[in-house]
Amino acid sequence: MPHIIVPEAEALLDKPIPVLDKGEVVLIDYMGSDSRVVAAARVSYGAGTKTLREDRGLIHYLMRNLHTSPFEQVILTFRIKWPLFVAAQGARHRTARPNAESFRYSEVTDEFYLPSRLRNQHATNMQGSLDAPFEPTEGCTFSEEELCGILGQATRDAFARYETLRRAGVARELSRIVIPQNLYTNWYWQIDLHNLFHFLRLRLDWHAQWEIRQYAEAMARCARAVAPLCYEAFEEHLLYGVRLSRTELEALRQLLAQECVEPARKLETAAAAVGLKARAIAEFSAKLLPEVAS
Amino acid sequence: MPHIIVPEAEALLDKPIPVLDKGEVVLIDYMGSDSRVVAAARVSYGAGTKTLREDRGLIHYLMRNLHTSPFEQVILTFRIKWPLFVAAQGARHRTARPNAESFRYSEVTDEFYLPSRLRNQHATNMQGSLDAPFEPTEGCTFSEEELCGILGQATRDAFARYETLRRAGVARELSRIVIPQNLYTNWYWQIDLHNLFHFLRLRLDWHAQWEIRQYAEAMARCARAVAPLCYEAFEEHLLYGVRLSRTELEALRQLLAQECVEPARKLETAAAAVGLKARAIAEFSAKLLPEVAS
Amino acid sequence: MPHIIVPEAEALLDKPIPVLDKGEVVLIDYMGSDSRVVAAARVSYGAGTKTLREDRGLIHYLMRNLHTSPFEQVILTFRIKWPLFVAAQGARHRTARPNAESFRYSEVTDEFYLPSRLRNQHATNMQGSLDAPFEPTEGCTFSEEELCGILGQATRDAFARYETLRRAGVARELSRIVIPQNLYTNWYWQIDLHNLFHFLRLRLDWHAQWEIRQYAEAMARCARAVAPLCYEAFEEHLLYGVRLSRTELEALRQLLAQECVEPARKLETAAAAVGLKARAIAEFSAKLLPEVAS
Amino acid sequence: MPHIIVPEAEALLDKPIPVLDKGEVVLIDYMGSDSRVVAAARVSYGAGTKTLREDRGLIHYLMRNLHTSPFEQVILTFRIKWPLFVAAQGARHRTARPNAESFRYSEVTDEFYLPSRLRNQHATNMQGSLDAPFEPTEGCTFSEEELCGILGQATRDAFARYETLRRAGVARELSRIVIPQNLYTNWYWQIDLHNLFHFLRLRLDWHAQWEIRQYAEAMARCARAVAPLCYEAFEEHLLYGVRLSRTELEALRQLLAQECVEPARKLETAAAAVGLKARAIAEFSAKLLPEVAS
Repeated sequence: MPHIIVPEAEALLDKPIPVLDKGEVVLIDYMGSDSRVVAAARVSYGAGTKTLREDRGLIHYLMRNLHTSPFEQVILTFRIKWPLFVAAQGARHRTARPNAESFRYSEVTDEFYLPSRLRNQHATNMQGSLDAPFEPTEGCTFSEEELCGILGQATRDAFARYETLRRAGVARELSRIVIPQNLYTNWYWQIDLHNLFHFLRLRLDWHAQWEIRQYAEAMARCARAVAPLCYEAFEEHLLYGVRLSRTELEALRQLLAQECVEPARKLETAAAAVGLKARAIAEFSAKLLPEVAS
Repeated sequence: MPHIIVPEAEALLDKPIPVLDKGEVVLIDYMGSDSRVVAAARVSYGAGTKTLREDRGLIHYLMRNLHTSPFEQVILTFRIKWPLFVAAQGARHRTARPNAESFRYSEVTDEFYLPSRLRNQHATNMQGSLDAPFEPTEGCTFSEEELCGILGQATRDAFARYETLRRAGVARELSRIVIPQNLYTNWYWQIDLHNLFHFLRLRLDWHAQWEIRQYAEAMARCARAVAPLCYEAFEEHLLYGVRLSRTELEALRQLLAQECVEPARKLETAAAAVGLKARAIAEFSAKLLPEVAS
Repeated sequence: MPHIIVPEAEALLDKPIPVLDKGEVVLIDYMGSDSRVVAAARVSYGAGTKTLREDRGLIHYLMRNLHTSPFEQVILTFRIKWPLFVAAQGARHRTARPNAESFRYSEVTDEFYLPSRLRNQHATNMQGSLDAPFEPTEGCTFSEEELCGILGQATRDAFARYETLRRAGVARELSRIVIPQNLYTNWYWQIDLHNLFHFLRLRLDWHAQWEIRQYAEAMARCARAVAPLCYEAFEEHLLYGVRLSRTELEALRQLLAQECVEPARKLETAAAAVGLKARAIAEFSAKLLPEVAS
Repeated sequence: MPHIIVPEAEALLDKPIPVLDKGEVVLIDYMGSDSRVVAAARVSYGAGTKTLREDRGLIHYLMRNLHTSPFEQVILTFRIKWPLFVAAQGARHRTARPNAESFRYSEVTDEFYLPSRLRNQHATNMQGSLDAPFEPTEGCTFSEEELCGILGQATRDAFARYETLRRAGVARELSRIVIPQNLYTNWYWQIDLHNLFHFLRLRLDWHAQWEIRQYAEAMARCARAVAPLCYEAFEEHLLYGVRLSRTELEALRQLLAQECVEPARKLETAAAAVGLKARAIAEFSAKLLPEVAS
């Protein structure tokens, strides 16, 4: 099985996906696809088991049961142009393999992220912003447009000082320290599918900063193209699933016991109604009503 | 805050916890505890936020929301004596830092895992065994005791051949290849608390082989002693929680809609009844009934 | 630059390279080549520097100066069939991404490494063996052939006991513990080029066990095919280079001072004689005679 | 051996080491020392070998032969206050476990790195600066002091705009993007000794930016206090040793052959003169004159 080629992924190769005002995500290369995940998983099972499960079922089984290593066999390589403050969030994902533009080496070019819309501070989520049109605080004399102008002016002034320092002979590595964090920078960023899913789970979430979410969405589009069944299983089990704590589970069990005449039968009926199959129905019941299942 | 000392952990230091017939887990050292996790998390929040949340609440918040890095600040170092086939499972956890006994260097000593009880092959879980007294297959003329005897004889014969080869001048690194996988071996094994919880989640599970579960339980005892609040949060959110897929969630929502007159209010009442507080109740409702929550 | 194709690597794809008596290394897939390393390195330098250095010079520069991250952009995926005791050494390399055959799941097949030549224990290197024809110890009544026979018999007996246990209904995960470590097992093993070079440096070395060296040589052949310039730089700077300690360097400097009339000039002449260019000559002199260079 | 206490390290605990104008490195905690490295290495050798080598000799042996895993058993935890552009360099070391201050969560405080001396751009090392008093380029009308003033003014202006945006209700996560990279930020940064040595080797080097070298020196002081024998071996074999490529080695061999009457004997005499012992002399000769050694 030399070089797995996926037409949907080929169509994305080397095609910049625009992000923010001047950024982009480019899928540079990929290795493997759904079939590689399946082949890697089947190494564990040896000869004679190849027809045991259909590919799709196997992939969902792996995702559901935290058998994560087969997903590591698929790799995606991105070229990303993102502002420094977004890149710093990306750098926290230590399982990716980055190559980052160095402003010790290269001169800073005049490319900065300049949003045309602002966001208000979130009142209770101290690290977040409101998902609503921006409203200046009471008594503030600046409009949103003027505030964007201040942001742009800050950027231009900083860049002008950088140029002054550099022309005066100050080393690039020192001049650049006046440059603000909305400067765009270019990275190579290679990651395996398991760790990309972990990244996406955190960075597609509404708690993530809006700007990195835009990058996550572009990468998610690439991941879906490269390995559609894996992506589907990721959405089903991780991205759009929920985790209930032991106490939450207890609350739910008590509620079901109070409200339903035969909770076990009702659960199974509801599971069948949304399309779950026998084994999946049994797993579902076992999660919510373990005493019945065992 | 130099060297955090936890009396419960001190009591375990250098005290071998027996596992299986001849194995053991020894907590050699640890660094940090609940308070280190809290301090590391608060680095993110800067000055002025120190009283924002109580430690326990903060730790549960971190665990619930996948803020895993503060848990990496706590380290445990174990000395473990385990059979080769268990050690090989331990070696799959690539985030631990091991130092393993080398049988290229040391001579093999006559210490093998010899179970006195056997387990039947599981019929549907192809990689598992039955949790029930052993029954020889129909027509089998051996008793459980005799089968254990065969296992012991296999071990003695292999060891005798190893000795023959070695005495004939064959290099240790080559003689050892006849030694079976129930040989005991000594490891240093150091791991941070976040990755230990991941290990425990997989290896305390009933799908894990019974033998490694015994080691996981001894390590869990050490983890609970070192960082009791973190361990409590691990049990609450990861070990005894469940994950519902998008489809399972849909089934549950439909069931609640059918069975309850006012599902949102009922959920809240049930959550309050098991002791959840306001914010936790809101999170619980948002998971199950997002349209109501938002 | 979609999918870099290297004809030499294509010729190896899916072609098993035989290793030992029944083992093999198969290059399943690869991503990137020399040109990817160069492209990743140039991300650091930004626009306008593309003609600065030729590819070969740049790759040697990166290797010489421990700029390792561009080499991480090239990935190789292997399928490997190796005995358990070799696989355990492979598992120590925690930066590779493995998927290993499970003998909890699959039945053990009767495939064992049975060497036809033995090696004597090394006298001073306690973990090594002699690189010479095997000689039984004095007074030993077994020939090399008979000792190989004992090794084979040990394997057959163990396998027979495994079969007995399994047929008696003992779970595979438990029956397998009598199986010796020369059992062959199948792995997927994916690794980036930087970490593969680290693996090769340790496992091509004569201190490594002869058996794993055979696997390392097969993988080295694949690495050379995928990225020939990188492999050349690896040989030049890591594999066939040497490291001198501070004290060794001091001894060498004193020797040169004593023996040579003009050591600096002589060093440069010698460096030029073996083909080093101006910058490389200066680096060479600076290592050995720093006081002259600065 | 519960909790290894090293008086020299205890004396550093929680004592900030000042770095740059407002930064610091604080050793918060450590686990293990030289004796832990020795104990971990001896796990590999089993019983009966404990007196084989003295601790110091064993540690040098491990360092010389790339047996790196025992050094991973020692852990250091730092609290570091460093400017964003230095922190970004620190973040490239993916084997450290960081917890970083978040300016999405915390407000930016008015603490910036403001150097009082500048450095000129290096002419040939495009990513470096000159190690010499700063000289403005010809025709430049600014003095060094005035350029430092411009840098300070850039910082004050940026901070004032941040305050304006924030007071107008713009979310912290967005306001901060105008803040330049000389802002100080607080990190927890935990790392094992092997990977700290790798960090120090790269960041104590003169190619590293002067600012991060100051942090590396403070960390090196802590590492030396925690594990003095390991640090000595690090200096001897990695920090102050050199690597010769295959071609450089060839040049050196030819030079020795030309200049010395009996190169092998002369090498041994020189090695003995600087204090090397028998085994080390043999290793030294084998590196430079392998044909003689074998």
